[in-house]
Amino acid sequence: MIPDNSRCVRKSRVLQGALTIAALTIVIVQPGNALQAPKLSVMPWPKSVETGQGEYKLDGYFRAGFSGAHDARLDKALNRFIVRLNLQCGGVRRTQYDAKDSDPLSLTLSVAGPGGAVQGIDEDESYKLNVTSSGVALRAATDVGAMHGLESFLQLVTMRDGACSLPAVTIDDAPRFVWRGFELDVVRHFEPISVIERTLDGMAVAKLNVFHWHLSDDQGFRAESKKFPRLTENASLGQFYTQDELRHIVAYARARGIRVMPEFDVPGHTASWVYAYPELGDGRTVRRIPQEFQEYETNQGELDPTKESTYKFLDTFIGEMGEIFPDAYFHIGGDEVDGSGWKTSASIQEFMQKKGFKTKDDLQAYFNQRLLPILQKHGKKMVGWDEVLNPALPKDIMVQSWRGEESLSAGAAQGYTGILSAPYYLDGQKTSEEMFLADPIPADTKLTPEQQSKIIGGEVCMWAEQIFPGTADSRIWPRTVAVAERFWSPQSDRDVADMYRRLRVVSLELEDAGLTHISGPAKLRRSIVGSTHTGAIDAMASVTEPVSFGDREDAQHTDALTPLNGLADAVVADPPARQEIAAEVDAVMNEHSKAAEAALRERFLAWQQAAPELLALAQKSGRFSNAGPRVEQLAALAAVGLESLAYIDAHTAPPAGWLNKQKALLKNVEQPGAYVRFVFLPALGKLAESAATSR
Amino acid sequence: MIPDNSRCVRKSRVLQGALTIAALTIVIVQPGNALQAPKLSVMPWPKSVETGQGEYKLDGYFRAGFSGAHDARLDKALNRFIVRLNLQCGGVRRTQYDAKDSDPLSLTLSVAGPGGAVQGIDEDESYKLNVTSSGVALRAATDVGAMHGLESFLQLVTMRDGACSLPAVTIDDAPRFVWRGFELDVVRHFEPISVIERTLDGMAVAKLNVFHWHLSDDQGFRAESKKFPRLTENASLGQFYTQDELRHIVAYARARGIRVMPEFDVPGHTASWVYAYPELGDGRTVRRIPQEFQEYETNQGELDPTKESTYKFLDTFIGEMGEIFPDAYFHIGGDEVDGSGWKTSASIQEFMQKKGFKTKDDLQAYFNQRLLPILQKHGKKMVGWDEVLNPALPKDIMVQSWRGEESLSAGAAQGYTGILSAPYYLDGQKTSEEMFLADPIPADTKLTPEQQSKIIGGEVCMWAEQIFPGTADSRIWPRTVAVAERFWSPQSDRDVADMYRRLRVVSLELEDAGLTHISGPAKLRRSIVGSTHTGAIDAMASVTEPVSFGDREDAQHTDALTPLNGLADAVVADPPARQEIAAEVDAVMNEHSKAAEAALRERFLAWQQAAPELLALAQKSGRFSNAGPRVEQLAALAAVGLESLAYIDAHTAPPAGWLNKQKALLKNVEQPGAYVRFVFLPALGKLAESAATSR
Repeated sequence: MIPDNSRCVRKSRVLQGALTIAALTIVIVQPGNALQAPKLSVMPWPKSVETGQGEYKLDGYFRAGFSGAHDARLDKALNRFIVRLNLQCGGVRRTQYDAKDSDPLSLTLSVAGPGGAVQGIDEDESYKLNVTSSGVALRAATDVGAMHGLESFLQLVTMRDGACSLPAVTIDDAPRFVWRGFELDVVRHFEPISVIERTLDGMAVAKLNVFHWHLSDDQGFRAESKKFPRLTENASLGQFYTQDELRHIVAYARARGIRVMPEFDVPGHTASWVYAYPELGDGRTVRRIPQEFQEYETNQGELDPTKESTYKFLDTFIGEMGEIFPDAYFHIGGDEVDGSGWKTSASIQEFMQKKGFKTKDDLQAYFNQRLLPILQKHGKKMVGWDEVLNPALPKDIMVQSWRGEESLSAGAAQGYTGILSAPYYLDGQKTSEEMFLADPIPADTKLTPEQQSKIIGGEVCMWAEQIFPGTADSRIWPRTVAVAERFWSPQSDRDVADMYRRLRVVSLELEDAGLTHISGPAKLRRSIVGSTHTGAIDAMASVTEPVSFGDREDAQHTDALTPLNGLADAVVADPPARQEIAAEVDAVMNEHSKAAEAALRERFLAWQQAAPELLALAQKSGRFSNAGPRVEQLAALAAVGLESLAYIDAHTAPPAGWLNKQKALLKNVEQPGAYVRFVFLPALGKLAESAATSR
Repeated sequence: MIPDNSRCVRKSRVLQGALTIAALTIVIVQPGNALQAPKLSVMPWPKSVETGQGEYKLDGYFRAGFSGAHDARLDKALNRFIVRLNLQCGGVRRTQYDAKDSDPLSLTLSVAGPGGAVQGIDEDESYKLNVTSSGVALRAATDVGAMHGLESFLQLVTMRDGACSLPAVTIDDAPRFVWRGFELDVVRHFEPISVIERTLDGMAVAKLNVFHWHLSDDQGFRAESKKFPRLTENASLGQFYTQDELRHIVAYARARGIRVMPEFDVPGHTASWVYAYPELGDGRTVRRIPQEFQEYETNQGELDPTKESTYKFLDTFIGEMGEIFPDAYFHIGGDEVDGSGWKTSASIQEFMQKKGFKTKDDLQAYFNQRLLPILQKHGKKMVGWDEVLNPALPKDIMVQSWRGEESLSAGAAQGYTGILSAPYYLDGQKTSEEMFLADPIPADTKLTPEQQSKIIGGEVCMWAEQIFPGTADSRIWPRTVAVAERFWSPQSDRDVADMYRRLRVVSLELEDAGLTHISGPAKLRRSIVGSTHTGAIDAMASVTEPVSFGDREDAQHTDALTPLNGLADAVVADPPARQEIAAEVDAVMNEHSKAAEAALRERFLAWQQAAPELLALAQKSGRFSNAGPRVEQLAALAAVGLESLAYIDAHTAPPAGWLNKQKALLKNVEQPGAYVRFVFLPALGKLAESAATSR
């Protein structure tokens, strides 16, 4: 809607634009519906897309203006937009200072109001984007909606015949879920401010709206408290954010339409708290900040829920943090409470007996019941992981499910608000496809519509045991955008091929916006090789992905001191070659495509050619020494591929036993090694099967 | 020297180390002196290097400790060092928390004291590094010296047989010049804090010790003043550093042994000042902050040196900035005063007449004479560009020469302290070789030793008309390290080949340390192509470099709104291929090397193969459309190379006129185009000459 206070000149232009639109041929577009429409690369895919005819061409000058009032936040968002457009399109120049009022606008923004002073889950994030041959109109109810519209604008821009243009289109967009979060652990490995900023930049592109900041855990306390300075003085090893920095990030996020929800995990995962303030603890002594992620945990300190002083401490602390983080939601963790210290403490046992508590869960429920009014006093809603779910607690807490969609549904059936995270753990190293298809409310849900309304979204989670600033981006992006589409777009949006087509485009857009998910691993490969000539390792990396967190943890027992500088750190989950090779094999089998055959042969030869150099590297470098066997396997797999192609080409079946031998090899290389796995094994298996029956 | 307060255990270990050293075979090493010693990659090359026999192997744990007291700054420097070592070497893990006192140390630091509370030009930056088979001892007089030693340590580490080690060596090092600066213009394009931090990280690697921050100019005012808030409110377009950020950078630099000298350029280059505070100006009206770099300058406002209020303003302003920047030196610019406003102002003309000033230089000298006591009052020494040099000023000002070594020498002969910058302008896009060989005090200097002592160093300069955050690193690094070696290492160090050998190693080290000079242009090439498949444009980029600032300015008239997103921005000055091709041509001509011939043929074929894809890109993308003719030229040059090789191979002379035709082509492609030039033309010319005489 056009706000009442819009200035006349602008208003009439926008209305003219709207009239023009009415005369266009309108086609409703589904993602991937290629026949009826140009392939748009908007991601997340909008609620409604109607393509028109023609396009809006960007010329040398780009003039943007507001119809009606706007605030400084939107002004800055428009400036950032223009910088990115400027980078994307040669010759597009912004006009900030000498446009005349009579100049036609390239982009007219009509925004009804700024939105909430503190963004809430009820923020209206919708927008309408109208591209005609004479200009672009963007209408939104709030700044946040307008910023989403600007992101879609950039994704509509394509370069053709030497010039940038946007196809004529009407987008009417709004998110499916109000909670579209991204959780980042900054404890197991600390991430500097620049990484947080980049992450928020990426979230803005993906239209995610909640940054969930996991700020404390056993291995460190990362947020400065002036009330309790020992939390960071003693328990951060110098790696923490000052309050100024925390506020800076809250402001940086707000500038991008993103809420910041802090998490301070209690009463477990609290060795750092107890190390700094032993009086908070369950009586066990925390001798040092653990650097281990697993073994040390049985020895960690947990909070003592029986002491009044614990609640006094938390009251003061939550009051302090509640001012820094204005968001209505406050995450108290609550996961994986061990409780062994509660068992060995006489005073805690006595307390439990007096209260009639049978289990540690009873005591944790009591703790949460005590915490709830403290949070409420400071104007906060409680959020916790699955374990906080307990009938003893009222329905207005929110549950974040790391256990899965069933656990989440069970909570919703009981009336608890919830968000889903289990399928979206990035360190599971799953494909974008798998994460994209996991739905917080699957189509076959048994929940009633009323119960479904309790599930308000989900969060992608990035735990930090196996990342450091040089690899964080490459673990997070671009896969997170596939999940962001799940959270934003209609439930019916399940076209995997088109999702990947758009993901490849957005991936480059993210790097233009400052992310380093492609350049980071490339840099690490140069570092491993000690040279800018990385053809050999690149060939291997392109078809290799990291194993899951658990598999690497089992094999390597990583801790905070483990160097994350080898092959497994320099490759990415679900690399493009996985799909490309699968498609090439299908094309060879189904269409006898000579081009696909040539592409495959080129790949296989490159793997073979890479082997001598990489084996020498494995001899020389401790960073690559564990990869030697993998290199030999890759060369052997290349031979499988080349032989398969030879039989197919010659229309000759291989000798008896050939296929079984290849299958055994394919099976064998599934064994773990160098914390990586090959991404093409199913496709190569199909090719070998096909070769075995060639005639 | 080992400080008196060192603890006994550590002390005895260090002494033992020193005794061990005495038994080693000692070889004095010059850079590139390959026969006598392993090729060390320390850069800048140290004052004295004595190699021993054997090596110190790094095993799974790395224990570092101090012999004697140390401060928190050095502790943090050691932490950063260990993180980098950890990335460099697989399996090296730091032991921060559970080393026993009896464990042998891998690295023992003995540092006499922290150094100046505010680092001055008299800071003792020397260090001694002693590597034996049992450990490493680092001794320094100050934290800064110790940090230099830690950088050398990292550069000594090599990976062999799967493990990291340092060769036995004794390094006795100290800089030749006390002033080794790097100037960054953040006005013509603003650089965010993260770029400044990266720059300081790179400077630390290069052992540079002065960050000269060009914070104001016509196009904007970048440092927040609380006394004069309109400077940034009105004259920065929102792009400035808060005082907190300025202080943060000063602290970040100090943590790395780097001084920060601010520059506020007066009385010219001041349109931003006069736009914010018109009463400071010469009477001309500054209507807007200029975005242009050249044409607008005749219309700029300059300060009025005749008003007392101007000096009152500067007194308050310098007092405010002098507290934020504790360095003893304060740069007042002083370059390129236009003075046309002084000519048209009746009151200024009257003032000049009264004082008997004939020229604008007289008035500027008066201005500087007035400024000097203000600076002195705030404890600052005056630094200015060549133009401040005037007999009216006392000898204790310092001159930074953008005019060149002759101007500098002339100043020194008059007794003025000076530093050289003219040969080190990075936007001249000169080779590392050329900049490395330019000496602030050439061997054939006519200056007396006393006069020579007035030349205390130099500064690399990065002006920002043609860079933005995505390209800044690639314009600065690694070439700046070549100049850093000129400033640090003995005058006799002029082995260009060995300089390049080490520069290639340091270049990768810089990227490991967080710089993006390789990954940034690679990202830009992906962005231009719109794909991760950049083989074609990479082939072209590898043999292409940007033209000089002046050549691009003449052709494109860049201003602050010019998109810097094309081929010229995605290539780097003096790429490795320049030398590689030259070496390959020499090997073909002099040694009839078949390997070099094959390498050249592969390059030429790659250029030809890239052409169709790149021509299609030039058709499609406005970002590459200007490069089309260059692509055709590259393909034609490839043909010159391939034909040359064919004649050489066949021992057959080409037909008459062939060479002239090739020479004409080589001459023709020297013409400007797409703001880039080819780096292999001399080598290819030699190859064609050689072919023309083959038999």
